[in-house]
Amino acid sequence: MTVQAYRSAIFHVLGDPARKPEGQAFEYWDDGGLLVEDGIVKSIGPWTDVKHQLPAGTKCRHFRDGMIVPGFVDCHIHYPQIDVIASYGVQLLDWLNNYTFPAEQKFADARHAATMAEFFLDELLKNGTTCALVFSTVHKTATHALFKAASKRNMRMIAGKSLMDRHAPPELCDTPESGYADSAELIAKWHNKGRLSYAVTPRFAVTSSPEQLQSAGKLLGEHPGVFMQTHMSENKKEIDLVRKLYPDAKTYLSVYEGAGLLGDHSVFAHGIHLEADEYKRLGRERAGISFCPTSNLFLGSGLFDLERACAHGIKIGLGTDIGGGTSFSMFQTMNEAYKVCQLRGAPLDPLKSFYLATLGGAETLNMDRRIGNLLPGKEADFVVLDLMATPLFAHRFALARSVAEKLFVMSILGDDRLVHSTYVLGQLVYEKAAAVRDGKTDQKRKQTKSNV
Amino acid sequence: MTVQAYRSAIFHVLGDPARKPEGQAFEYWDDGGLLVEDGIVKSIGPWTDVKHQLPAGTKCRHFRDGMIVPGFVDCHIHYPQIDVIASYGVQLLDWLNNYTFPAEQKFADARHAATMAEFFLDELLKNGTTCALVFSTVHKTATHALFKAASKRNMRMIAGKSLMDRHAPPELCDTPESGYADSAELIAKWHNKGRLSYAVTPRFAVTSSPEQLQSAGKLLGEHPGVFMQTHMSENKKEIDLVRKLYPDAKTYLSVYEGAGLLGDHSVFAHGIHLEADEYKRLGRERAGISFCPTSNLFLGSGLFDLERACAHGIKIGLGTDIGGGTSFSMFQTMNEAYKVCQLRGAPLDPLKSFYLATLGGAETLNMDRRIGNLLPGKEADFVVLDLMATPLFAHRFALARSVAEKLFVMSILGDDRLVHSTYVLGQLVYEKAAAVRDGKTDQKRKQTKSNV
Repeated sequence: MTVQAYRSAIFHVLGDPARKPEGQAFEYWDDGGLLVEDGIVKSIGPWTDVKHQLPAGTKCRHFRDGMIVPGFVDCHIHYPQIDVIASYGVQLLDWLNNYTFPAEQKFADARHAATMAEFFLDELLKNGTTCALVFSTVHKTATHALFKAASKRNMRMIAGKSLMDRHAPPELCDTPESGYADSAELIAKWHNKGRLSYAVTPRFAVTSSPEQLQSAGKLLGEHPGVFMQTHMSENKKEIDLVRKLYPDAKTYLSVYEGAGLLGDHSVFAHGIHLEADEYKRLGRERAGISFCPTSNLFLGSGLFDLERACAHGIKIGLGTDIGGGTSFSMFQTMNEAYKVCQLRGAPLDPLKSFYLATLGGAETLNMDRRIGNLLPGKEADFVVLDLMATPLFAHRFALARSVAEKLFVMSILGDDRLVHSTYVLGQLVYEKAAAVRDGKTDQKRKQTKSNV
Repeated sequence: MTVQAYRSAIFHVLGDPARKPEGQAFEYWDDGGLLVEDGIVKSIGPWTDVKHQLPAGTKCRHFRDGMIVPGFVDCHIHYPQIDVIASYGVQLLDWLNNYTFPAEQKFADARHAATMAEFFLDELLKNGTTCALVFSTVHKTATHALFKAASKRNMRMIAGKSLMDRHAPPELCDTPESGYADSAELIAKWHNKGRLSYAVTPRFAVTSSPEQLQSAGKLLGEHPGVFMQTHMSENKKEIDLVRKLYPDAKTYLSVYEGAGLLGDHSVFAHGIHLEADEYKRLGRERAGISFCPTSNLFLGSGLFDLERACAHGIKIGLGTDIGGGTSFSMFQTMNEAYKVCQLRGAPLDPLKSFYLATLGGAETLNMDRRIGNLLPGKEADFVVLDLMATPLFAHRFALARSVAEKLFVMSILGDDRLVHSTYVLGQLVYEKAAAVRDGKTDQKRKQTKSNV
C-alpha cells in the first residue's frame, strides 16, 4: 500500500455554484492536507485534522507557496491538430480544408502519430489537465497510438477515431462500414481498459453521410456506456451547409438525434448558434456542450451563450479545442470564457469557471463519481499550483482577499507556469522545476559570444 | 565610442503593409546583422554584409535560436493600475469606481509610487516594450516618480499626470487651476529631457469639467510638441453619460475638439463606438487611437473597428491598457487583436499586427523618426526573441515557412517568455536567463519534503 500526504492551500468545487447555497459550492483551506492511498483520496481537510490520520512513516510533501486543486478536465480537444494551432486568416470550413485536413493526413504514419501522442499528452499534463475528451484522426492506428500513450500515463481519457466519409480529402475518408468496424475494434481493445473510455466520434454532420451517422448510432446502441462526441452549430456557414445537406431535418440537432446520437453520454462541441428547440432537447436529454472560448474567438465563430445553456440544464464543460483554440491552458481558457461572457453582458463568476474546468467537466463526461474534485474515494488527479509563478502573478495574487478573488486572479493571469506539478492517480507525472532546469541549459546552448 | 554587433534572424517593418507594395513593407534576414554605435543603429542587413562593416575588435553577440525585432510600443497603459489587473465582474464606469480609484489613491504615497514605477517599467522591459504612452494618477509626485524611473532606464516614454476634477473621490480630484500648474511644472521638468516627453492627460470627459478641458487645451497651446492623451467611446454607458454632461456637444469627440484637444499629437484610447463624423475628424487631424483588445474584451466594452479606422487614415497603435487589459505582453495583445478582428469578420494580417505593435505605434506617437524599426540612424531599442521559448512554441514555429507565418505563430502563441532580452539605446536592460535562474532558486525555497 502506498500512502502519501500533501500539505498546501487546497481548493476544490463541490457543485455548481449557481445551484448550491452560498458557500457550500466549494471547500478551501489555507493550510490544508490531502492524504492519498493507492491513488485514491483517503482524506482531505485542514492540515491540523489530516495530520492526525497519517499512518506512521507517511511521507509528506509541503508546498508552502502552492495551492492544490483538482486536475483539469478538457472537454474538447484534437490530438492531431498541434501543428495547426495559430494557422492564419480563415473561419471554420476553410480552416478545415486549408490547414486541418492536410495536418491530419500525416497521422496515417504510425510513427508520426506515436510521437505526437506523447507530445500532446505531455502538454496536457504540463497544463494541469488530467482528463480529456479527445478527437483522433480517421486513422485506427493513430487512435491506438493515443490510447497507448494515455495508458502509459494512467490518465483518465475518452477518445475516438473520427468518422468521416465525405466532404474531406479521400485519404481522410472511411466508409460507414469501415468506420463501424474500426470503431468496434477500438472499443473492444480500449473501452474501460484501466481509466480509458471510448467515444464514437462522427466529426460533424457535414463530413458524415446519413448512413454513417446511422452506423454511429448503431455502435452506441451496441455498446452501452460508450460516449459520443461531435461538433455542432459552431459557425453560421457550417449551419447553412448542414441545412442544405439535411433538408428534412428540423434542426441541426435533429440530424444527430435522428441517428440515435443524442443522450446523456453525448458531448457536442461549441453549440454557439443554437435554436430554442435545440437548447430544450439538449437539456432534457442531459447532454453536454463543450464551451471552447479561445477557439470560438480565434475562428471568429461567435459568442457562446453560457447563461442560456445553463438555464436549460445542459451539462457544460470547458474545451481548449486545440488546434482551433490557441492554448492548452485551462487558465487561458477561463480567461477568454470570462471575456466571451463579458461581451454578452453576463460576467462569469470565478467559482463557476473553476467548476466548469473541473467538476462541471467531469459531470459533462459522466465521470463525476471518479474525478472532478478531491472528496475521499475519488481518484487522486490533482495539480499543485505555483503561487509565485511570475513576479506579476505573485504581486497581484498577494492582494487577493477572498477565495473567489484568488481564483479570478488565477483565471486571468494564469498559464502553464502556474502549474508547479501534476499528479495522476497519486503519481507525480509533471514537475516544473525540471522544465525550468532544462530551459536554463537550453539558454546556455543558445547564447554564444564571440569576437569577430 | 561604443560599438556592438548582433547576429541573429532579424525582422522589422518599413511601413503600413496595407499601403506599401507587396514585399516592401518589411525586411527579414534569416541570418542578419545589426551594428549599433553609441545607442544608434549604424547598419542592418544580411550578416554577410554587416560583418564587413565592423570596426576591428567589435564584440558580437550571436543569438542562434533568436530573432531581433524592434522594441514594442504600447500606446495606452496605466502605471498605477497593476494592482487592479484581474478585478472581477463589472464594466467601465463601475470598474473605475470599485477598483481603479481606490488603487490610484495609494499613489499619494511617494514611496508606494516609486516602488510601483520600478515594478511597472521592469514588466514593460520584460515584455519587450521599450516605449509607452502612460497614464499616471492625478498626483504630481507619483508622476515625478515614473519619469525618474524611466529616466534611469533611458527609456523613450511619454506620460502625464491625470487631470480629473469631478465624478471621482475627492482625494483624486485636482482643480482646473492646480491641474494646470502641476502639469506645467512636470512639463518644465521632464518634457524633452533625454528621451522623455510629456502628455497632457485629461482622464476623460466625465471626470474633467469643461473648464478643466479648456485649461488642458491651454497647456497644449502653450507647449508645442507636448502630447495629449485621453479616453473616448470605450463603453456605451460612458457615451450616454458624456452626452448628458455635455448636452450641447455634437459628438463625444467634439467635446475634446472644442477644448483644443484634437490634433496630430493627440491619442485617444479605445474609440470603439465612434460615429461617422468622429472617424472623419480623427483622420483629417491625423490623430491617433490606441486599440486595446485585451481590455476591450475583459471589460466587455466591444469590438474596435480597425478596418474602418484605418480607412479614415487615423493613426493606430496597440495598447495593453493595464489594468483594464489582462497582459503586459504585446504578443497577447496581438493575439486578442486578431480575435477581435475575426469576430468582425476581417482577419488581421500578422504583418499589420507587428506594424501596429512597432512602427505604427511609433507613428501614432509621432516618434517614427526615432524608433519603430531598426533603420540606420534610429535609436537602438530592440528585443531578442527566444524562438525556443517553450516546447509548444518551438514545435509550431519550426513548421512556419513564410515570414508572415512565423510572425503569426509568435503573435498567437507568444508571451513574455518569447522575450529573451531587451535592449534600450543599445544597452541590455532585461535578460530572461537571469529571471529563469531566480525562478529556480525560488522553486528550491518553496519545496520542502519532510516526514511527519
